Amino acid sequence: MSSTLITVAPTGAETAKADLPQLPTTLEELVETAQACERAGAGLVHVHVRDPERDHAPTLDPVRLRDTVQALREATDLVVQLSTGGSVHDPLESRLTVLDAEPDSCSLTCGTVNFGDDVFLNPHGFMSDLYVQAQEKEVVPEFEIFELGHLAALARLIDAHGLPYGGKVHVDFVTGVPGAMPGTVPALVAGVQMLPPEVTSWSATGIGRAHLPVAAAALAMGGHLRVGMEDNVLFARGRPVQHNAELVSRAAELATTLQRPPMSTAQARELLGVKERRAR
Amino acid sequence: MSSTLITVAPTGAETAKADLPQLPTTLEELVETAQACERAGAGLVHVHVRDPERDHAPTLDPVRLRDTVQALREATDLVVQLSTGGSVHDPLESRLTVLDAEPDSCSLTCGTVNFGDDVFLNPHGFMSDLYVQAQEKEVVPEFEIFELGHLAALARLIDAHGLPYGGKVHVDFVTGVPGAMPGTVPALVAGVQMLPPEVTSWSATGIGRAHLPVAAAALAMGGHLRVGMEDNVLFARGRPVQHNAELVSRAAELATTLQRPPMSTAQARELLGVKERRAR
Repeated sequence: MSSTLITVAPTGAETAKADLPQLPTTLEELVETAQACERAGAGLVHVHVRDPERDHAPTLDPVRLRDTVQALREATDLVVQLSTGGSVHDPLESRLTVLDAEPDSCSLTCGTVNFGDDVFLNPHGFMSDLYVQAQEKEVVPEFEIFELGHLAALARLIDAHGLPYGGKVHVDFVTGVPGAMPGTVPALVAGVQMLPPEVTSWSATGIGRAHLPVAAAALAMGGHLRVGMEDNVLFARGRPVQHNAELVSRAAELATTLQRPPMSTAQARELLGVKERRAR
Repeated sequence: MSSTLITVAPTGAETAKADLPQLPTTLEELVETAQACERAGAGLVHVHVRDPERDHAPTLDPVRLRDTVQALREATDLVVQLSTGGSVHDPLESRLTVLDAEPDSCSLTCGTVNFGDDVFLNPHGFMSDLYVQAQEKEVVPEFEIFELGHLAALARLIDAHGLPYGGKVHVDFVTGVPGAMPGTVPALVAGVQMLPPEVTSWSATGIGRAHLPVAAAALAMGGHLRVGMEDNVLFARGRPVQHNAELVSRAAELATTLQRPPMSTAQARELLGVKERRAR
């Protein structure tokens, strides 16, 4: 079997720095984290930017986004992916401007779901706008699938607008969010069975305690992995994650044991079809 | 195997009367439809009320709702269920007031989904309020499941607030809405596998062309049926439904062939645990 793309989602928009001081929220922390995760086997970093001057809250500030992409691109060979989810409170228009920071990749969540007591809003019109703008700006979308219906919505996007820039279609199953598909093997199996034929690769993540079983099942079915403190802040019961690289190392070890070792960043770039934007 | 509950959803909130004049939207049409469907084998009528004075648009007007419930209760022995979905444009507060019309049952959609280009908003807080108020008013909720995550949300409701009035938990899978779980047998199978243990019965419907395959698979797995012009306006390719009773009759025939004949309205009342509100 082939090698494994390990995505690290080091920060997210949910956890407060005050509650978890080791969460990387400053640019320096993020760069250090990305470098350590690259050494540990990651191929892609999925970034939510925080504002250290505003309690490390999530931000879509264009200057911070651009600086972050540039710093990560200079310091690592990781595929740099910006979240377009923002936090659940960001307006849709601001979330589209993420593309102006010229990341290699952007997330594109394929539907609306309850997210705990909040609603994570992704109306179809927003998805279409984001998809078309990503094509125009030559940014490769990663399609975030929180529910079975999101796969049908992805097929509808491709039908309407053709393939993404680069011609590859990579899907990420985000399981275990309260309000969305559970972080269980049967749910993942159902999703994998329903992947549209255009999909060229997929990964999966389980939130919280769903983390390890979903990773094992994904590897067993030929999928790739996403790990990180965005999804899971406990390394084991009662033992908080100290550094994202711990999660990447464990994923790399699991993948290697299952004869699906971590892929290089060059392989990750080819898998996803990202545009070469690094200075030469 | 046991008998089959046939629910008829004769109207819905989506189709315009102008586009489909045979859609029952006036009180007289609704009562005639309900009577014919009862004779054809229906046990429950799922009602969206329309306002003939405003282009037959969906309404949550309390007087119309109460009059409709009363008229259906006098004219039939069907379980009378009011939709709390309203249309996708109704505010959440108005949707809660549906309970004041004292229906036997109310729908309770267990999460938020894209609905075509709109968003069908059901935040967890709204679901909780509706659930608790239905308990207090002794109205039996039917849990509408548009996605796998909605089953986890249902389990969370029961965990937090106990069982519904009557102690029964009836789930309805609504499949094939653009934006939600597809109207396919694998999607239905995935949902059925993940039903919480508290669920005592379930039905399924497929929107549009998913109608017949989802009905057949539901019967094959011990489920019940929902049919009606809310979900499906074509009896066959190129042949519009002329009357909801056509759909009920076909469902009754299919169920009978599969040795799961339609249940009586008395059996339907027992299956769902509804309160006796009919005048004696």
